[in-house]
This record gives sequence, structure tokens and C-alpha cells, in this order.
Amino acid sequence: MKPAATEPLDLANPLRIRAAVFGATGYTGIELVRLLTRHPNVELAVLTSENFVGKRLSEVYPAFAGTCDAVLEPADVGGLSPRFDLAFTALPHGVSMEVVAALVAAGKRVIDLSADFRLRDPNVYARWYRPHQAQEILAGAVYGLTELHREELRRATLVAVPGCYPTAAILGLFPLFRERLVESDIVIDAKSGVTGAGRSASVELSFGEVNENFKAYGVAGHRHTPEIEQELGLIAKQAVQVIFVPHLVPMNRGILSTAYARVKEPITDSRLETLYRQAYEREPFVRVLPVGVWPQTKDVRGTNVCAIGYHAVPGSRHLLVISAIDNLVKGAAGQAVQNMNVMYGLPEETGLLRPGFVP
Amino acid sequence: MKPAATEPLDLANPLRIRAAVFGATGYTGIELVRLLTRHPNVELAVLTSENFVGKRLSEVYPAFAGTCDAVLEPADVGGLSPRFDLAFTALPHGVSMEVVAALVAAGKRVIDLSADFRLRDPNVYARWYRPHQAQEILAGAVYGLTELHREELRRATLVAVPGCYPTAAILGLFPLFRERLVESDIVIDAKSGVTGAGRSASVELSFGEVNENFKAYGVAGHRHTPEIEQELGLIAKQAVQVIFVPHLVPMNRGILSTAYARVKEPITDSRLETLYRQAYEREPFVRVLPVGVWPQTKDVRGTNVCAIGYHAVPGSRHLLVISAIDNLVKGAAGQAVQNMNVMYGLPEETGLLRPGFVP
Amino acid sequence: MKPAATEPLDLANPLRIRAAVFGATGYTGIELVRLLTRHPNVELAVLTSENFVGKRLSEVYPAFAGTCDAVLEPADVGGLSPRFDLAFTALPHGVSMEVVAALVAAGKRVIDLSADFRLRDPNVYARWYRPHQAQEILAGAVYGLTELHREELRRATLVAVPGCYPTAAILGLFPLFRERLVESDIVIDAKSGVTGAGRSASVELSFGEVNENFKAYGVAGHRHTPEIEQELGLIAKQAVQVIFVPHLVPMNRGILSTAYARVKEPITDSRLETLYRQAYEREPFVRVLPVGVWPQTKDVRGTNVCAIGYHAVPGSRHLLVISAIDNLVKGAAGQAVQNMNVMYGLPEETGLLRPGFVP
Amino acid sequence: MKPAATEPLDLANPLRIRAAVFGATGYTGIELVRLLTRHPNVELAVLTSENFVGKRLSEVYPAFAGTCDAVLEPADVGGLSPRFDLAFTALPHGVSMEVVAALVAAGKRVIDLSADFRLRDPNVYARWYRPHQAQEILAGAVYGLTELHREELRRATLVAVPGCYPTAAILGLFPLFRERLVESDIVIDAKSGVTGAGRSASVELSFGEVNENFKAYGVAGHRHTPEIEQELGLIAKQAVQVIFVPHLVPMNRGILSTAYARVKEPITDSRLETLYRQAYEREPFVRVLPVGVWPQTKDVRGTNVCAIGYHAVPGSRHLLVISAIDNLVKGAAGQAVQNMNVMYGLPEETGLLRPGFVP
Repeated sequence: MKPAATEPLDLANPLRIRAAVFGATGYTGIELVRLLTRHPNVELAVLTSENFVGKRLSEVYPAFAGTCDAVLEPADVGGLSPRFDLAFTALPHGVSMEVVAALVAAGKRVIDLSADFRLRDPNVYARWYRPHQAQEILAGAVYGLTELHREELRRATLVAVPGCYPTAAILGLFPLFRERLVESDIVIDAKSGVTGAGRSASVELSFGEVNENFKAYGVAGHRHTPEIEQELGLIAKQAVQVIFVPHLVPMNRGILSTAYARVKEPITDSRLETLYRQAYEREPFVRVLPVGVWPQTKDVRGTNVCAIGYHAVPGSRHLLVISAIDNLVKGAAGQAVQNMNVMYGLPEETGLLRPGFVP
Repeated sequence: MKPAATEPLDLANPLRIRAAVFGATGYTGIELVRLLTRHPNVELAVLTSENFVGKRLSEVYPAFAGTCDAVLEPADVGGLSPRFDLAFTALPHGVSMEVVAALVAAGKRVIDLSADFRLRDPNVYARWYRPHQAQEILAGAVYGLTELHREELRRATLVAVPGCYPTAAILGLFPLFRERLVESDIVIDAKSGVTGAGRSASVELSFGEVNENFKAYGVAGHRHTPEIEQELGLIAKQAVQVIFVPHLVPMNRGILSTAYARVKEPITDSRLETLYRQAYEREPFVRVLPVGVWPQTKDVRGTNVCAIGYHAVPGSRHLLVISAIDNLVKGAAGQAVQNMNVMYGLPEETGLLRPGFVP
Repeated sequence: MKPAATEPLDLANPLRIRAAVFGATGYTGIELVRLLTRHPNVELAVLTSENFVGKRLSEVYPAFAGTCDAVLEPADVGGLSPRFDLAFTALPHGVSMEVVAALVAAGKRVIDLSADFRLRDPNVYARWYRPHQAQEILAGAVYGLTELHREELRRATLVAVPGCYPTAAILGLFPLFRERLVESDIVIDAKSGVTGAGRSASVELSFGEVNENFKAYGVAGHRHTPEIEQELGLIAKQAVQVIFVPHLVPMNRGILSTAYARVKEPITDSRLETLYRQAYEREPFVRVLPVGVWPQTKDVRGTNVCAIGYHAVPGSRHLLVISAIDNLVKGAAGQAVQNMNVMYGLPEETGLLRPGFVP
Repeated sequence: MKPAATEPLDLANPLRIRAAVFGATGYTGIELVRLLTRHPNVELAVLTSENFVGKRLSEVYPAFAGTCDAVLEPADVGGLSPRFDLAFTALPHGVSMEVVAALVAAGKRVIDLSADFRLRDPNVYARWYRPHQAQEILAGAVYGLTELHREELRRATLVAVPGCYPTAAILGLFPLFRERLVESDIVIDAKSGVTGAGRSASVELSFGEVNENFKAYGVAGHRHTPEIEQELGLIAKQAVQVIFVPHLVPMNRGILSTAYARVKEPITDSRLETLYRQAYEREPFVRVLPVGVWPQTKDVRGTNVCAIGYHAVPGSRHLLVISAIDNLVKGAAGQAVQNMNVMYGLPEETGLLRPGFVP
């Protein structure tokens, strides 16, 4: 297979990572390909697909013609192993588990974009998904929210890329929970574009049903709830209860998460600004907005940025935080590339500092 | 002018209301025309417009050709007065105030769809809008949320039709506040289609900016906040604080309002169902959903219905209520027609029991 | 089953038609229900569904709660027969054929919205669809483009409702072909919203694929081509060749058809206006626009109207005609109701003169 | 001003172009910035704006934070001149003319994205736009459709970037007209996303009017007609008549152009494929599709590619060509960068070989 990478090798850093993408034709997979073809240290060595084996990626996604014309292969870990060093797995929950176990057994480093290795407690996983079949490697998985787990990522063999909703929510709330400024029960009202549900055939996701409609779903229990609770709990070092309600927006990309907390002591917008700026001052992919400015999903579309606005309601103990990401970039593929950069000692922004896509 | 009404006169109720619509070519105005042309007791006697005087309504909105071809006239209250009994005013805030005062002075009954007569305290109005120029008639205005003020509406001369966000929020929360089951500070995360902003030229509302975007706006203070606080306070007979954050959805119609409250005593979904069913059992335009079912905006599109779902989060004091309306019907024009029906002693559903518009 | 009709019986015309809708939960079916619940001479006696038997229609489409809460039944022609006089069949091609044959055998009048009885020549049908299994009743079917076949419709037992694209195209071209003013080969560039493809699960029709995209499809041969050729040929009394290219628009409803013809003799816009006005002067559902005005799909959304604009290109033999319809109304369900009105001797506009749905 | 370019200098080609973008905050301007920040030989030295002077570009378009934070300046040619070598002018028609004249007088090379220098005959320009005020430099302008005018571009001082519709249409028809295989009168039915109309405040372009609507516009004479006729005429070396009808699609980006021609002699799809492949075999940005495959706008979104499908209708003299571009890339900013590459002797793909943006 002809490598698809088009970036010139960075002479200052001649590292070359041979990467595989398992599940390259789903929405997360194709976004990985979009980012990796522009990464100077990556050679896209293997792309697998379940539905399009034997076709070129650019036949499935013609917008990649000329930049990635690789032929899609079956997900045969054994046969493909000699050709890559690092695997991104962008497969459905449950399916991913088995492939990841085989990859780890074959000595590969793995960045998994499914939910299979995000929850540390296999019993919690079992309750929200199904029995966990790879518990022996679960304990070693690192939760790949780079801003929180950078050190562990450097030596990680297996990374669990966070869910899209948790990424927006946790980054928005981290400074508050780290300082324990807010009560431990928190409301998160989140809104996502349609690609968060993946590329699949269903009446519910058809244009005629989604267009000109807005709805909540998973109200009584969405699978991202335990994930957010786990991470906020680790930050606060105490149990956290999350009231999480996701909504579906008639657009392709973007998540906006509006979190409502109650502060223990009154706080001002100005103090919040200081708190957030200090928490994220060295973070290349977190943008703390000035007081009174709010993020929009188009302001981060196509970028790896999480933009954050905040407001303490005067005369009350209420506080709100609005965070926006591109669900396919910072909420999935971009986060995964950021993880990779840390794992391989590359500058964290490598391949990710690009302008967004507007209008 | 040839009357536009196409419905046969109801022989059982021969009442004929000669109605005027001031501001018939805005989005609220045209929705009023859509509903009134199908109302058996209404004759659309006068339609005014600022921008399209002399044109037929069906030249501005060709979808009305054959059902309303009336010529648009200037908003000259004095000259038009002899030709109508009831006026709907769908004019901008501030502009409406003067026209309404003239109409009341001319002895007309008025249903005003602006914000000018919704806030009972002129000082509150002045703080959020501008100085109030018609305080002498403000005190007599009835807040036209029919479900709450039905009795006062029967004799009302001047009705202030509620804002679209308040309609969804208040109907969703009324049973909880009437029984004082929840704390008096409440979070309302609301999402609206674009027509809520009216029909106007602005870069911010242009397709290129709204499409593929989702954002919050008016975060630090939206004008609907004091309106919701006023009405919930009257219901609860105590001061209420509302944390209200509106968001813009890339669609034409619909509001979904997700309210988060804390109960004073633990409650179950089943008890909530009973509470809501009892509160609204005689209401033709409030649909209480079964436990575990959630409203979508398309489920009410084109109808005068407010659909309500609710959920008490197990193991917590948190409770959430989701309510959906069509912002142009129950959130504006439909509500106004419902008000009119009550004012004139007509069956409340008259002209409003129609199937929605899907897909 | 409680009848769903909400319109008062028209005292001037006490006819009551007991109607069945086979396939009531597809997009065409639900639009039929929307129109028929408002028809004063119709009792919606039977609604069938393949996927939702036992549910109420308003559970599948909550926007119909209160206006049509009928329970959906299996499509058992024999068992249901005693309960209705007229059947609308809104079933997939091929499936419809069998149900229609059974209905006709049971002595019912049938208005079929599939393609099964539109093509007069069973060999042509076989070439584009599959072998025809009900040829014995095919010959008696009337092509239900009311404006062209009104007389035959009065006595029809079986009506084949035209396809959505053919409706827009044929009405736009009829005056030209009747007078044989144009060459017999014609280009039709048509654009349709997504609901024309029905309500079904497919990746191709998913929001993520349709939104922010525009494409042609069926370029080398769409099934509506022979239908348009058949009808234009009958009008012109000579063979007609249609170059037909359909395109998919990211919206729910609406067809805009742009036809390009070459005139045999030079013609002016003014003469075209006269020609079109004369051809359609008595037609309640064809709107001939003034010279220089062009139809938009929103101008007919929710209505049974076909709006037509036309232009002779100065200094050339080229002429173009633009016609717009709502694909679910004039392109399907509205047309079917118009057919019914003619079949039963009712005024043709009955139940169909309603304002459109904007914005 | 800190240069915004983030690409490492290409060691193999150390050329550094100091570029100015006049009108950087319109939709064309911002797309130029998106592409130029990734071009290894460009330093974005000056960005001007009419409405946002003094603001950072990333305040107007936050998606550019970190990749282009330059401050916007007034369009003062004299004062800015020392700081740049090449100017891109993305200004309104008429306004551009004056700025371009000043730039040329100051000895700059100019790539103009307005319509002001596209039409060679000033009388034709005057008929469609206004009197031409810079005729002295008009004669020297090169029409920047790179595929057709590559040689003249190398030495050009002033380049007129083609209109978006003409780009799609001319590339789709060039092989046919060069060989004079088709009649000289041609039908072009084109469809464009909304950004083609620029970023401006107007009711017509507001979301509420554009969403869920499809329409033709400029039917009796769109300004791109003479531009297409001029270029096709030069190719064919004879007068060409274009019947051009543009339509507005409810999406942000993309043009699909469907052209209908009549061949002089019968032709097959297979022969067409050969013709198109030969015509474009060395073109990096023209993608000739296989027989039976058709372009979609999403297949080129975010890329500089024009994708072309074609079909000879069997048994007729009719032939159709479908071409798709991203109106802001190949239809404007990408084309301009391609022009620049040729003007400066750079490999033509420099900065333009990037994957598209899907979903």
C-alpha cells in the first residue's frame, strides 16, 4: 500500500510512526484519516473496514481522492501486525474490545476510540454496556483526556479516548471540581450534532426525522453519565453525581455543553476568569473566553479546541459553564492524535494546529 | 376588502368577530393569519404592514394565494377603527405600546403579542426594555397564558400574550410551583428555532451563520427571565429565581425547554405523572406524556399543544421537566387565538384542533 | 374505532365517504391522514400499517394526538372490507399491486399512490419495475392527474396517482405540448426534498449524508422518465423524448422542476403568459405566475398548488418553464384527495383550500 | 504584525511571498486566509477589513484563533504597500476596481476575486454591472481559470479569478467545445449553496427564508452568463449562447452544475470518458469520474477539485455533463491560490493538496 501521508517529513524530528486505523470508514475513522494524512510524523500504513474491503478509501469518500487512496483491508490483526506500530481502533463498542486485546497481545500500542476501556470498574461497564471480556488489560488503560492525564499517557500502551460529551463536560468543569468550589451534584445539559451517533442506517437518524426537529434522548440514563462521574470524582476526590441530559441538534458536527453548578461560596465572573485562565494557561487546545463571551460550535468546527465560557449568576449561588467542541475532533479523532503526540514525545500540537472550517 | 376567512359559519354559534392583525407580515403575524383564516367565527377584516402597504398578503406570502388575498394597509388606528372589533398587535416592542394605547382608547379589545404589557411592574419593564409609555392601561392587562388566567381573560380588554420561552417554561413548571414541591431557584435551559427572532435582515440570522451552528445567547440576562420569574412567583406565592439560558437551534420552528429543579422531598416518576395529569386533565392544549417518554419539537409542530415529560432522578433530589411547543403557535399566534376564544365565550379549541405538520 | 374526522358535516352536501388508508404511517400515508381529517365528507374508517399494528396513529406521529388517535390495523382486505367504501393505497411498488387487485375484486373504489398502475403498457412497467401481476385491471386504471383526466376520473374505479416529479413536469409542459409549440425532445432538470424517497432506514438518506450536500441521482434512467414520456406523448399525440435528471435537495418537502424546450417558432413571454393563463384559467390548483416571477418551493409548501413560471430566451429558440409543488401534497396525497373529490362529485377544492405552512 | 503562516518554510523552495488579503472577513476572504495560512511559501503580511478594523481576525472568526490572530487594517493601499508583494482583492464589484487600479499603479501583482476584470469587453461589463472605471488595465488582465490560461498566468500582473458558476460550467464543457462536438447553444442548470452570495444582512438570505426552500433566481439574466459565453466562445472559436439558470440550495457550500448539450454526431459514454480523460489527464484539480458515476458537492467540499460526470443519452443527440466544486475553494479562494502558484513558478498543488471536510 502506498502511504497516504502527504506532509513532508519534519527534519527536526525524523520520527516516523506507522499507524493503522481499524474502522476507517465510520465518521470517527474518516476524521482520523483526515488528521493523520496531515501529520508529519505519521505514515498511514493500514486502513481497515468492515463494509468496504477491497475498495479505495477515496472511493468511499471521494473528498480524499489524491490525499488518501489506500485500499481498505479486513481487520485481521495477525496478518496486518508486521506493517504498523500503533493502532487506532474506531470500532463499535464490544467489537473493539476483542480487536484491542489482540493488538495488545501482539505488542502494539493502541488508542481506542470506543467506550470499552473508559470505565475503570468492569462492573460499571457491565451495567451500562455488557460483560467486559478484556478485564486483564482494562486496568492498564489510560483515560486519554490529555489535559488531565498527560503524564500517564507518555508511557501508555492502551489509551481509552474519552467520549465526546464527557470531553466537553469535564474540561468545562475541571477547574471548579479540582478546587472543590461547587457542590458535588451537577447538571449537564448537552447538545450534539448528528455525527455523534455514527454512520448507520436508521429511520431515527434519517434526514426526514432529524431535520427541523430538536429533542432530548437518553434522559433517564445515558452511557456517558458514569464516565463523567468517574472523572469528576477523581478530580474532586469525592463522589460526584451528574444529572446529564443529551439533546440532538439538526447539524452534522459540534457539541455544546451547558453545565449548571452551585458554588459553596459566592464567586464573581472576574474570579472565575482567573481560575480558568490559570487552570488552562499552558493548554494549547483549551480556549478560555473573556467574561461575557460565549462559545459557539462553529467557532471550533474542524479544530481540536475546547472553548469555554462561564458565568456566576449575581445574587445567587448558581454558576454556569458553557463548553464547545467539534465532536469528531476534540471529541474523538483530534483527541486521539493529541494522545499519540504525547505517547511518542512529539510536540502536542503536531498536526493539529490548523484553522477551522467556516463557513 | 374581501374577507379572507374560508371556513363556513358555524350555525351552532353564529358569532362573527371582525378581527384586525397589526403587523401581518412578520412571522407571528402570518401565523395569526394562517390560524384565523381557518377560524369559523372570525372575519379577517384588516391586515396592516409597515413594509408592504398596498400589496396583497399573498404577494408577500404566495402560500396564502386563494386563502388570503387581502390588501395590506398602513397601521392607521383611527381610520381603520370602524371596520374591526378585535385587534391582534404583532408589532415590535415599543412600537406596540403606542398602537395598543390608541386601540384601547378607541374602545377596542386588544390581544398584544409584543412584550409591552407582560410585565406588571413598569419599573421592571423599564429595566429590561425602555421606559413604559402606557402605564395607565398596563395595570388592566391580563397575562394571556390561558391555562393560568382563564377567568380574567373572559372579561379582558387588553391581553398580553406570553413570550414563547415563558410559555414552555411556565407550563412545564406550574404543577411543581403550585404545590411548592421544589426549591424556589430553578434552572431553565431552553432551545429555540430561528423564527423566534422574527423576520429581519441581520448577518447573525443569515443562513451562512446559523446553519451548522449551535450557540447560547443572552446568557447573562435574557428579557424573558423577569417574565418567567413574575409568573412562577405568582403561582408559588413567593419570590422565584430563574437561571435562564436560551440557545439557538438551526431550524425554523420549535422550542424545547429543559428545566432542572430540586425537590424538597424525594418524589417518584409515578407520583409526578399523577401530579401533572391532575393539573392538566381538563386542558385541551397540554399533553402530559407517560413516564419515560420525552417530547420532540416535531411532535407539536403546527399545533397549539405544549407536550410535557418529567423525570425524578433516582437517589437524588433532582428533577427535570422537558416541555416542547411550536414557538409560533402555542408560543404566539395559537395562544392568541386561544385567548380570543375565551374572551368571546367560544369553545376554547375553536379553530385550533388541527393535525400538526410533519414531516 | 372512533372516526378521526373533525370537520363538521357539510349540510349542503351530506355525502359521507368511509375511507381506508393502506400504509398510513409512511410519509405519503400520514399526509393523506392530515388532509382527510380535515375533509368534511370523509370518515377515516380504517388505517393500516405494516410496522405499527396495534398502536395508535398518534403514538407514531404525536403531532396528530387529538385529531387522529385511531388504532393501526393489519392490511387484511377481506376482514376490513365491510368498514369502508374507498381505499387509498400508499404502499411500496409491487406490494400495492396485490392489495389493489384484492380491493377491486372486493368491489371497492381505489386510489393508488404507488407506481403500479401509472404505466399503461405492462411491458414498459416490466422494464422499469418488475413483471406486472395485475394486468387485468391495469387497462381500466385512470391516470389521476386531475387537470388532464377529469372526465375519466368521474367514473373511475381505480386511479393511479401520478408520481411527484411527473406531476410538476407535466403540468409545467402541458400547454406547450398540447399546442405542439415545442420540439418533441425535452430536458427536465428536477430537484426534490428528501421525503420523496419515503420513510426508511438507509445510510444514503441519513442526516449526516444528506445535510450540506447536493447531488444528482438516477441520471442514466429514473423510473419517472417513461411516465412523463407517456403523458406528454398522449398530450402531443406523438412520441416524446424526455431527458430527465433528478437531484436531491437537503430539505424535507418540495419539488422544483426546471424544463428546457426549444420552440418551433419564436415566442414572447407575453404570448406564453396568455397561453398558460388560458390553459389553466379554470384550474383551482394551478397558479400561473406573472412574467418575470418564479416559483419557490416554500410558496406551495403544505398546499395542493402547482405554481408555474416561464421564460422565452430572447434571440433564441430556447424556452424554460419552472414549476413547483409540495411533493407530498400535489405530488401525492393532495392530488389523491382531488381525485376523490372528482370521483364522488364533490367540489374539487373540498378539504384542500388551506393556507400553506410558512415559515 | 506577527505573520500568521504556520507552515514550515519549504527548504526545497525558499521563495517567500508576502501576501495581502483585501477584504479578509467576507466568506471568500476568510477562505483565502484558511488556505494561505497553510501555504509554505506565503507570509500573510496584511489583512484588511471594512467592518472590523482594529480587531483580530480570530475575534471575528474564532475558529482561526492560534492560526491567524492578525489585526485587521483599513484598505489603505498607499500606506500598506511596502509590506506586501502580492495582493488578493476579495471586495465587492465596483469597489474592487479602484483598489486594484491603485495596487497595479503601485507595482503590485494582483489576484482579483471580484467580477471587475473578468469580462474583456468593457461595454459588456457596463451592460451587466456599471461603467468600467479602470479600462486601462482591463486589457492586461488574465482570466484565471488555470486549466485554460496557464501560460498567460505565468507573467500576469493582474488576474481575474473566474466566478464560481463559470468555473464549474466551463471546466465541465471545455473538452466538448474545444472539439466542437456540440451545438453552440447550451443549457446550464446550476445550483449553489448560500455562501456564494457573500456575508451580508438581508431578509432573503436569512435562515428562516432559505431553510426548507429551493428556488431559481436571476432566471432572465444572471451576470455570470456573459462570462461563460465569453470563455466558451474563446474555446470554440465561435459565438456561443448560454441558457443559464442558477438555483439556491439550503446549504452553506457547494455548486453542482448540470449542463445539457446536443451533439452534432452521436457519441457514446465510453468515447466521452476518453475525451475527458485526455483533456484533463495532467490536471491535478480536475477529477474525471468513471462512466455512470456522478459528482456530489460533499465529494469536493473543502477541496480545490472540480469533479465531472457525463452521459450521452442513448438514441438521441442529447448529452449531459455534471460538474461539482466547492464554490469557496475551486470557485474562488482555491482557484486564486492555484493562480498564485503558477504566477510564482511554484508547483501548482502547493498548499492545496488537502483532504476535504466530511461529514
